[in-house]
Amino acid sequence: MPISRRQTLGTCYYPEHWPEERWTTDAKLMCEAGLTHVRIGEFAWSRLEPTRGEYQFAWLDRAIEVLADAGLKIVLGTPTATPPKWLVDEMPDMLAVDTDGRQRGFGSRRHYCFSHLAYRAECKRIVTQIAERYGRHPALAAWQSDNEYGCHDTVLSYSTAARDSFRDWLAQKYQSPDALNRAWGNVFWSMEYTAFDQIELPNLTVTEPNPAHVLDFRRYSSEQVVAFNKLQCDVIRCYSDAPTSHNFMGSVIDFNHYDVGADLDIATWDSYPIGFLDRDTDDEEIKARYLGVGDPDLQAFHHDLYRACGAVRNGEDQGRWWVMEQQPGPVNWAPYNPSPSPGAVKLWAWEAFAHGAELVSYFRWRQPSFAQEQMHEAMLLPNGEPNEAFHAATEISSILHDLGAETTNARADVALVFDYETAWAWQTQPQGADFSALDAALRWYRALRKLGLNIDIVPPTAAAMEGRKLIVLPSLFSISDELSAALERSQASILIGPRTGSKTPDFQIHPDLPPGPLQRLIDLKITRVESRPPFAKLAVEDDLGLVDGWREFGRAGGAVSCRLKDVEGVPSWYQAGRVHYVTVRPDQQLSNHIAREISVEAGLIIYDLHRDVRIRRNGRLRYVFNYGPEAVDVSDLVCADKLVHGTSQLSPRGVAICELGD
Amino acid sequence: MPISRRQTLGTCYYPEHWPEERWTTDAKLMCEAGLTHVRIGEFAWSRLEPTRGEYQFAWLDRAIEVLADAGLKIVLGTPTATPPKWLVDEMPDMLAVDTDGRQRGFGSRRHYCFSHLAYRAECKRIVTQIAERYGRHPALAAWQSDNEYGCHDTVLSYSTAARDSFRDWLAQKYQSPDALNRAWGNVFWSMEYTAFDQIELPNLTVTEPNPAHVLDFRRYSSEQVVAFNKLQCDVIRCYSDAPTSHNFMGSVIDFNHYDVGADLDIATWDSYPIGFLDRDTDDEEIKARYLGVGDPDLQAFHHDLYRACGAVRNGEDQGRWWVMEQQPGPVNWAPYNPSPSPGAVKLWAWEAFAHGAELVSYFRWRQPSFAQEQMHEAMLLPNGEPNEAFHAATEISSILHDLGAETTNARADVALVFDYETAWAWQTQPQGADFSALDAALRWYRALRKLGLNIDIVPPTAAAMEGRKLIVLPSLFSISDELSAALERSQASILIGPRTGSKTPDFQIHPDLPPGPLQRLIDLKITRVESRPPFAKLAVEDDLGLVDGWREFGRAGGAVSCRLKDVEGVPSWYQAGRVHYVTVRPDQQLSNHIAREISVEAGLIIYDLHRDVRIRRNGRLRYVFNYGPEAVDVSDLVCADKLVHGTSQLSPRGVAICELGD
Amino acid sequence: MPISRRQTLGTCYYPEHWPEERWTTDAKLMCEAGLTHVRIGEFAWSRLEPTRGEYQFAWLDRAIEVLADAGLKIVLGTPTATPPKWLVDEMPDMLAVDTDGRQRGFGSRRHYCFSHLAYRAECKRIVTQIAERYGRHPALAAWQSDNEYGCHDTVLSYSTAARDSFRDWLAQKYQSPDALNRAWGNVFWSMEYTAFDQIELPNLTVTEPNPAHVLDFRRYSSEQVVAFNKLQCDVIRCYSDAPTSHNFMGSVIDFNHYDVGADLDIATWDSYPIGFLDRDTDDEEIKARYLGVGDPDLQAFHHDLYRACGAVRNGEDQGRWWVMEQQPGPVNWAPYNPSPSPGAVKLWAWEAFAHGAELVSYFRWRQPSFAQEQMHEAMLLPNGEPNEAFHAATEISSILHDLGAETTNARADVALVFDYETAWAWQTQPQGADFSALDAALRWYRALRKLGLNIDIVPPTAAAMEGRKLIVLPSLFSISDELSAALERSQASILIGPRTGSKTPDFQIHPDLPPGPLQRLIDLKITRVESRPPFAKLAVEDDLGLVDGWREFGRAGGAVSCRLKDVEGVPSWYQAGRVHYVTVRPDQQLSNHIAREISVEAGLIIYDLHRDVRIRRNGRLRYVFNYGPEAVDVSDLVCADKLVHGTSQLSPRGVAICELGD
Repeated sequence: MPISRRQTLGTCYYPEHWPEERWTTDAKLMCEAGLTHVRIGEFAWSRLEPTRGEYQFAWLDRAIEVLADAGLKIVLGTPTATPPKWLVDEMPDMLAVDTDGRQRGFGSRRHYCFSHLAYRAECKRIVTQIAERYGRHPALAAWQSDNEYGCHDTVLSYSTAARDSFRDWLAQKYQSPDALNRAWGNVFWSMEYTAFDQIELPNLTVTEPNPAHVLDFRRYSSEQVVAFNKLQCDVIRCYSDAPTSHNFMGSVIDFNHYDVGADLDIATWDSYPIGFLDRDTDDEEIKARYLGVGDPDLQAFHHDLYRACGAVRNGEDQGRWWVMEQQPGPVNWAPYNPSPSPGAVKLWAWEAFAHGAELVSYFRWRQPSFAQEQMHEAMLLPNGEPNEAFHAATEISSILHDLGAETTNARADVALVFDYETAWAWQTQPQGADFSALDAALRWYRALRKLGLNIDIVPPTAAAMEGRKLIVLPSLFSISDELSAALERSQASILIGPRTGSKTPDFQIHPDLPPGPLQRLIDLKITRVESRPPFAKLAVEDDLGLVDGWREFGRAGGAVSCRLKDVEGVPSWYQAGRVHYVTVRPDQQLSNHIAREISVEAGLIIYDLHRDVRIRRNGRLRYVFNYGPEAVDVSDLVCADKLVHGTSQLSPRGVAICELGD
Repeated sequence: MPISRRQTLGTCYYPEHWPEERWTTDAKLMCEAGLTHVRIGEFAWSRLEPTRGEYQFAWLDRAIEVLADAGLKIVLGTPTATPPKWLVDEMPDMLAVDTDGRQRGFGSRRHYCFSHLAYRAECKRIVTQIAERYGRHPALAAWQSDNEYGCHDTVLSYSTAARDSFRDWLAQKYQSPDALNRAWGNVFWSMEYTAFDQIELPNLTVTEPNPAHVLDFRRYSSEQVVAFNKLQCDVIRCYSDAPTSHNFMGSVIDFNHYDVGADLDIATWDSYPIGFLDRDTDDEEIKARYLGVGDPDLQAFHHDLYRACGAVRNGEDQGRWWVMEQQPGPVNWAPYNPSPSPGAVKLWAWEAFAHGAELVSYFRWRQPSFAQEQMHEAMLLPNGEPNEAFHAATEISSILHDLGAETTNARADVALVFDYETAWAWQTQPQGADFSALDAALRWYRALRKLGLNIDIVPPTAAAMEGRKLIVLPSLFSISDELSAALERSQASILIGPRTGSKTPDFQIHPDLPPGPLQRLIDLKITRVESRPPFAKLAVEDDLGLVDGWREFGRAGGAVSCRLKDVEGVPSWYQAGRVHYVTVRPDQQLSNHIAREISVEAGLIIYDLHRDVRIRRNGRLRYVFNYGPEAVDVSDLVCADKLVHGTSQLSPRGVAICELGD
Repeated sequence: MPISRRQTLGTCYYPEHWPEERWTTDAKLMCEAGLTHVRIGEFAWSRLEPTRGEYQFAWLDRAIEVLADAGLKIVLGTPTATPPKWLVDEMPDMLAVDTDGRQRGFGSRRHYCFSHLAYRAECKRIVTQIAERYGRHPALAAWQSDNEYGCHDTVLSYSTAARDSFRDWLAQKYQSPDALNRAWGNVFWSMEYTAFDQIELPNLTVTEPNPAHVLDFRRYSSEQVVAFNKLQCDVIRCYSDAPTSHNFMGSVIDFNHYDVGADLDIATWDSYPIGFLDRDTDDEEIKARYLGVGDPDLQAFHHDLYRACGAVRNGEDQGRWWVMEQQPGPVNWAPYNPSPSPGAVKLWAWEAFAHGAELVSYFRWRQPSFAQEQMHEAMLLPNGEPNEAFHAATEISSILHDLGAETTNARADVALVFDYETAWAWQTQPQGADFSALDAALRWYRALRKLGLNIDIVPPTAAAMEGRKLIVLPSLFSISDELSAALERSQASILIGPRTGSKTPDFQIHPDLPPGPLQRLIDLKITRVESRPPFAKLAVEDDLGLVDGWREFGRAGGAVSCRLKDVEGVPSWYQAGRVHYVTVRPDQQLSNHIAREISVEAGLIIYDLHRDVRIRRNGRLRYVFNYGPEAVDVSDLVCADKLVHGTSQLSPRGVAICELGD
């Protein structure tokens, strides 16, 4: 039975940035704000080992003592995201190489190639030193390996180290060049190899490389991240019983987070709602409306995704997960960096708790006056005085305490499959310029969240399909036998989006035509695929929405009915009993329509939420959020006498919490 | 007297991609669809020679036998566009280098530098092997050298091989550094050389290189393509009497296609109307209207252009030409890849036949399930079943048979000069960002085609001027004495666009000022040139259209009249008898107006075609096309009782064919 | 007491481009046009020294004699912007390296790295030769060192020479790696160095480098330009008493022009109003309105800026300055190159004279028919006949003579601080994508010029603050003690824009929070900064304008009043007596409002000029300009009986000059 845990707050602290005499004040202030956890150490290699072998742990010993003495729990980071210059100078080929063939130099962070084995050995060495020293410290709450794998496009490296290691990986996988040639279809354009050491990395080709070549390189690269992380976790476990974690980024899909999660006890992620808003939509109306609060669904999506990543290792349904870094104010790294709207800093924390986060940790404690992130706000001003997030945290921690808020691990009725290989596949072969797996998933996610549903985001495993009422496969590129069987066994309604099941694992079109094995669920063959530019969207009958850039033409068997057509008479939605195949990329209006229809048929209890309102249930508590700029009456969503926080007249960026019956 | 040839269909086939046991079925299906020609072999080097010297022709022998036994004629490609990896590893410096100085690696196709002599020797070797073996095969209909020269920007290579060879070429051309310095004007900015081996390629300079330097490099690079192609044709002719061909691309202007054509018996090209639409206009209204059928004039333009290329070798007026690859459905390589509208796949073939194509060959026979083009549709689905283009071809071949359609070689009354050096010159020195020779030609081409005229696109030779009623010089950068004399001799009306005759062959402003030698035809000196941004178009008097970004100011002699002015009172159109100089880049409306006026004065019979309608005459047949989304009444263009195909109520993307009197 | 000098015209001439027999004609025509000065020689290295040590001065001797004999004064350029190929081949590592690590090759101009000491030695050698030969020539009016430092982004070079020299520079500045680590805050992300030779140049890092690292590299790079220039000036002064000059570019801010100016007797600049228009705004309405005349304020801004640069060496208030190159017609280097509107070529010269220019020199005398600038118009056509600018110059020189126009050196009441370090700082850390120091300065400059004020642009020195009525600090990144004290002493109204005083010289946030030392003038702490995208501008109360992308949140002391708020109630403008802090980037409307209010309070006499009209006073003369496309009545600005040129009904691009009383 899953363990419930108390929900709490933390922060990220860099004692090495501040005078030692300040540390006690900082620790005291943290406690005053109600923080319980503090992450330290993750960029401090040059202070822990200023030159090779000259370890300097005394300052860290003292910093930990100060924090522990104040009653704070420590999350200790390994410093491997920032190898010091002396180490880089010893082995300059540890640097990654970008897609243009240029070495990515020292001078910021993440300047290493995951494939470089000698660098991995160095990481093992420093992690061993740290784990040995602090692994049994009573204040130690958790470990963090490295920092933000994949940030700054650092998963893919076109280095010599990567090339050589990729060749070995291919040799291991395919055993013979002929097998590889067949799997990749290298007879096309005479790309056949007679030896594995003929194979180059798939960059700087004249025109696009073989997509199978790219996909294998993506798989290989992801596995290097997994191995890099596992090495650290294995070392740590030799010296410590504290759980391991890593702080994922949002919208980074360059490695398989489920696979990394399999070596972690806790998945954490770094949530910057405002900075992400700019990246994740081009719609200026939406950007302007949510400028100071961020996309109302994007953080939630990541909460649900990383909850799944935290579950992989312990085999639970829903895993341990934290927000390791929560935006506290304007940041420095987006093209524009607006101020959070009043209330937003608190709303973000509550949305995380509503999704089951154990810990929300603000990044960072005090704004540095120097270096790259000097314009990134923090809980304290650069001069050490409290800033907005300090006061927000103080308020939240008090309410958390009053609520006795705890994580729960209830499996949701709705499972939405998100798969990293699929994401790589469609990046490699978008066919229409703007087709992406993340976008495809988000459209359905938004539609379902608008219905007020709790959603689990899941990997494409048989186990994840169990006990669901609705399963959504937005664009899964290849269907395993195991998954196919699970879907056949399931009683759930199944919503299948375009491109699902269209390929073999070798990135070939499925020999039975798409949707491949899913034809066992619905008798339908896709015979044509078209992608259309943004100015050529097609209306769907009855003005239910638009075909937004992707349309498939199918040949359906007799038991399959056409549920909807576009204005040209081409079917947009096929149905065979509980199984639905949507042949188009629907715009949000059409996505909402389809999701609502199928949810009703699946027996789910749904709402029709106001544009700005979102709800989520965590255990006995329902959270209601207003992401909009105007107050909204949410009395239909909360029972006035069960309100434990907030009011039913939800102010802009306001949060209400009510207790539900069982 | 020119030879008429029966018009027919073909396809492109890759037996090496499919199980040998399938070959007979494929050949049978091809015949069922009425195909007569099949192209094979052009990417098969790794199968013909898996390692150096290990020739494996048996499979190709068998494939040819199967196809020949079914009655199909073979077009055999040389595989030099895809050298295998073992060859690249033997001589890695055969790879081209891009403008940023990066080597363009193995892993797709066209990974070679045209200047690399050792690679040329390898091509000669493999072509010799193939020509020797198959040159006298009775089923052999033609050869194809390489594949799509210039595709993927592969003409210009900044390799060491190119640099060294360019130096020799310059030494040969100029004989002394001083002569080169004078021709290029190298005294400007102290760019003078004292030895040919001081000269670098014109990339990676601090600001723009000398345009004369660039133009010579463009000429040099084009000549390498010519030499590369000629080497193969020369080898082939030692062993075979079958005609040689090469499949040009659309909108590629990086080498002189007339010069390559001089070594070919047949010019062919690869026609992808939908994919090109996106590249060739920014007008979203046009893109949306013709999304599923492509630009109504762009394919026609290329048909007319490559007909001229096919004529160079045999000295005929109008040459042999084919569509070697015709789009059969959605493709994979454009940013968006829409489906052809109903009827479009047929319309394209008929437009080609209307322009005198001997062969329209669909690319490709069967959609592969693997590698880069797996999303490119074909005549058969990946699972081997017939797809739309199969049925379209079946219908067309039957009608062709009934019509007894043949090519003709009638010289058109209208000649429009398109010159590759001019295209390079204006790419090198656009002066206004969007000025291009292709665009300048297309504006007049569209205007003339709207009048229902047959048009010959021609090189700037004296011979091409003969027997014309209207000659159009859109922007010819330099006028030879030979051409100038021919124009003086001609009785034709002459329409001269801006920049024509403005330079010497050395890329210097003509010493008599522009339009240089054409001042013998019209007494006019251009004293100022201005280019204007898109938001600053100027109206022309009487709302006849707009000055679209380019305007010249002239000083005209007394015999020259000003025929039109813009709203600022600056002349837009000068006339001296039958000679017209248009000082501006006219928008399409103004182009249409001017072309109409001059065509009438030239005694041409013209129409005023509906926006979507195009016509062309081939011999006794007039073809009428409806590129639009609505039906159009074309009874004024066809005599109902002379209709041999279609009806006078032309459906969307419909085609009507009628017989004309003599 | 400052010296007044007669105002006159010149041109730029390349005798080496033309047959020697033409020189006399050219000289005669120059005199006919009333030109007095002619610049020569600045790109002629390959003619002066075709191979190492083979000096060829005879042709230049003769050219100078021809020009001098005609009575022309010579400005002699050193040819170091165009080292010949033989020199580059001797030391290829003299070439600069771009930010992507690619060497910037020979083939155009400015192909050298300022840090390359051996190239500097070569420059010293050739300059010595030239200075020795011509330094005492009686016709010599001035020297010009090199040409357009910084043009084509040539200040920053990522070469090995730059890296090594930068390390030395850092060692000199910081004395120990620890001091550097502290100043830069390298503890952040373990960027600490233990030796200076570990430090790389700040390009090709994984994510952004430390801004302090970048700023020091910008300072270092600027100092190399200063040293490069000083070397030439020092050599020249050994052999010549003629003043030294250099021709700056517009909108180039990559080096400190004040510092270069400290080694020059005359600052000159190259004014191309039309080409700059495209670069300096995205507003198509403005671009279309001023297409043929350029931005009405941008040239004026540079006149005022470079007047300050010319003042640095001689310690005068306002320095000697010229327009060394004035646009004569369409140019060749902008994306589009429109024709100057009728009158514009004259207006530009008068605007320069109104700002105190001694010399306006048209670039160039005769349009070359060859090489990179063949499409750049000149005073003569390529065939040697006069073109528009010849006639314009003839008219201007005659009026100048009649007016007896002279430069004056009156200090303006208004000082606007422009600082190069600030420009680099905000390029390094824009925080909002479009925040720039130049833009910040221009907004206030436009607002003040609209009020009809004479404006001095000044460096942030105490001396420059003296005797002002209004001082504007648009965004000065760091405030020195000296400046702070001067501002405290001053009686002027002080207008402070956002970000002013926000940093220490080490690029750290000021420990007292922004605006740092200015808190001595106004009791205000900035606690939050937000940048907002273009679609999220905020209105200011009473519709006075918009907050345009930048907003700061402050904590003000009791003596500070809030003068204006935005619609969200956040203060936009704080005031404490004569000191004003504007917390936002105001749009032009709001800038105008604020500038007007403060100017009135500062006791300045202001106008409310028509949109297209500008005025400036030079000594006893007021110049009135109409930059617009329609005639404007300016009788309120000129006293009809004091008009010495033009009329009070100002035609489009017209100029009126009137005499003012004292």
